[in-house]
Amino acid sequence: MAIKWDNYFAERTRHITGSQIRQFFALTERPEVISFAGGFPGNEFFPRENIAGALFKIVMEDSRQALQYGPTEGSYDLRELTARRMRLEGAECEPGNLIITDGSQQGLDLLSRILVDPGQPVLVEEPAYIGGMSAIKSYGGIPVGVEIDEDGPLPSKMEETVIRLHKEGRPPKLFYTVPNFQNPTGATTSPERRHKILDIASRYNLIILEDNPYGPLCYEGEVPPSYMALDREKRVIYLGSYSKVLIPGIRIGWLAGPQPLVDKVSMAKQTADLCSSSLGQQLAWFLSRDGFLDRHIMRLTELYREKRNAMVGAMKRYFPAGVRFNVPRGGFFIWVEFPGHFPTGRELLELSLQRNVAFVHGEGFSSNGGGMNSARFSFSQPEIEDITLGIKILGSLFHEVEGNSSLKAVGQ
Amino acid sequence: MAIKWDNYFAERTRHITGSQIRQFFALTERPEVISFAGGFPGNEFFPRENIAGALFKIVMEDSRQALQYGPTEGSYDLRELTARRMRLEGAECEPGNLIITDGSQQGLDLLSRILVDPGQPVLVEEPAYIGGMSAIKSYGGIPVGVEIDEDGPLPSKMEETVIRLHKEGRPPKLFYTVPNFQNPTGATTSPERRHKILDIASRYNLIILEDNPYGPLCYEGEVPPSYMALDREKRVIYLGSYSKVLIPGIRIGWLAGPQPLVDKVSMAKQTADLCSSSLGQQLAWFLSRDGFLDRHIMRLTELYREKRNAMVGAMKRYFPAGVRFNVPRGGFFIWVEFPGHFPTGRELLELSLQRNVAFVHGEGFSSNGGGMNSARFSFSQPEIEDITLGIKILGSLFHEVEGNSSLKAVGQ
Repeated sequence: MAIKWDNYFAERTRHITGSQIRQFFALTERPEVISFAGGFPGNEFFPRENIAGALFKIVMEDSRQALQYGPTEGSYDLRELTARRMRLEGAECEPGNLIITDGSQQGLDLLSRILVDPGQPVLVEEPAYIGGMSAIKSYGGIPVGVEIDEDGPLPSKMEETVIRLHKEGRPPKLFYTVPNFQNPTGATTSPERRHKILDIASRYNLIILEDNPYGPLCYEGEVPPSYMALDREKRVIYLGSYSKVLIPGIRIGWLAGPQPLVDKVSMAKQTADLCSSSLGQQLAWFLSRDGFLDRHIMRLTELYREKRNAMVGAMKRYFPAGVRFNVPRGGFFIWVEFPGHFPTGRELLELSLQRNVAFVHGEGFSSNGGGMNSARFSFSQPEIEDITLGIKILGSLFHEVEGNSSLKAVGQ
Repeated sequence: MAIKWDNYFAERTRHITGSQIRQFFALTERPEVISFAGGFPGNEFFPRENIAGALFKIVMEDSRQALQYGPTEGSYDLRELTARRMRLEGAECEPGNLIITDGSQQGLDLLSRILVDPGQPVLVEEPAYIGGMSAIKSYGGIPVGVEIDEDGPLPSKMEETVIRLHKEGRPPKLFYTVPNFQNPTGATTSPERRHKILDIASRYNLIILEDNPYGPLCYEGEVPPSYMALDREKRVIYLGSYSKVLIPGIRIGWLAGPQPLVDKVSMAKQTADLCSSSLGQQLAWFLSRDGFLDRHIMRLTELYREKRNAMVGAMKRYFPAGVRFNVPRGGFFIWVEFPGHFPTGRELLELSLQRNVAFVHGEGFSSNGGGMNSARFSFSQPEIEDITLGIKILGSLFHEVEGNSSLKAVGQ
């Protein structure tokens, strides 16, 4: 008799659902598809000679360090270099405040495990990073959106939301934010807003979870000081990553925060997977210690700026005037908003896939059923000629759609 | 004002505690300590030339495959080779039934997340692997021990326990077992017992979670057919690992099971860390595909057999007659039981550490407060001369302890 697995699954699996993004990756990975979907770094930017050489050396010279189990909190060497990176950004950070994770996604998962009770509201940006929301939801938390614009979350809206939740008897404890070149909108929170948000956090006893995978990839101007650098009350937890600035394939990120929190995360990580990859940690350390990574990030900044310019230029040239988009100062993403008379983002994606171009429609990024008329475009992975070609194809599609909807409007 | 973190931690963190084993690793890692504590592979057995050469090739020849994000369920190539490995052991397995995890510890964590509700009893071996129990406990499950001897879990005791739990209105759904060269006892479940346990599972609707990191490292005789190979009802979930047979530092293991279960695990893994290390997966694939790994396992079998023989020989020579131990047919562990008039395992460990020798006392492996007079000795990591020296030092200690306790007995 076949097992009825539904009888065996735990209650909490009701909250676990696959990400819309990853579910249609299979589709977008067909070689004929130009994909603006995944937030993947450009393959052609991977410094493979340096990586191959470094791997050879670290394995031959200290195979124990590179190949054996390591400490749960991560190798001391990498934590020391990473803490130094944090201090250069103005944050107080020592190796003991820092734990290495399997990419920052594991940080989001472990933090949700440690901090989120079932039914508890967690403040997020509206729209927000899908992986952050799915971590919160998988532990039964309820993401509650705080509206953002091009300067980040609106402090007045944030305070209104906090007050409302307090009145409802379910005060929030946590605000999850991607302050630099946000996923999905590309927005960067202004310094003024950061101060105001920290002030709100202080007044309402909120912890700020600052997720900063894209900060180092800044194409214009400066990155504002981090929440962790501005914080005077040790109420900020910071997530960083080597995925976008080096490679994702080693799954190495980090979490920094106050000691009691980091100790608890470390215990949770022990159970989750004992430790992160020693080989990956040694590679990140080896390529960081002599300045290679910093020089590489400077090169990446030039290279991704060209990709961003190619996408923005093509959008200006090919998209109908009613389709709005922003020009992010860094990171991987452009947020596109379609006029109200257009089909939804989801419908447009279906039409686009018929023409072998992919993006992500906006619904998955919303905590409140919004995002119907929007989409996230990533310029990080496709090469420049494909960016131009893909946007041109979509431009034709959007013009056709606009023509049809005008016709429909006339016909009504 | 300092944040009171206890106000922020989720209710479930009550269940999360650090492993006793990992907590005293810092102590055992001092260079002057001979450690029989961790279940670490021997550093000197890592095939570092092959690994260094393979890494260089896979990075240079297909950097996208090795360095980019990969599918959540793991690379198709590695899943195909791993499924073939499972079929060679007699199990029905296709790449679609299999998901790559960050070592088998992540498999234990994800399965507990998917299958274990708070307060639910989960059958485990008594004694059992600490990491398995901590995964179960961290999701609120309650490990309930089934006594084992040198032939594995006692079917009669298992059935009694199941009946008792049914009567108590809290029927178990899951039995967690390490059938080959068990951690911590080194015991291997006999074929007869496997059949009987499968029969009990069938009659009481239990899922069997078969954790088999050590099976390939067999020094004498044959490994019995796996539960998954014997199962006719698809009620077995299998965990495997490349950590002991290749290297732990890439964190690559796998989980095989029926489709509905694997699909659910895959969704949970998406949230946990998006995907396992692409670099690690490519390395495991590269070293498996042409038979290198199989030849390496044959060499390891010879080498670890020598270490086991060295430890068993030294224990026979140096330990007092009253200290009992088994001779495992494979794996990394020997289980030691002290006479009742000895100090406890925990006390003996403290005395041993004063002489710079470490092992793990038995308490942590017990679900019911047992294991006071026992200890786990691992022969996998120290070199042979250190094995002999360490056991000799402990032999003197145990003889002294025995003399003291005889004197005390005389004095009474």
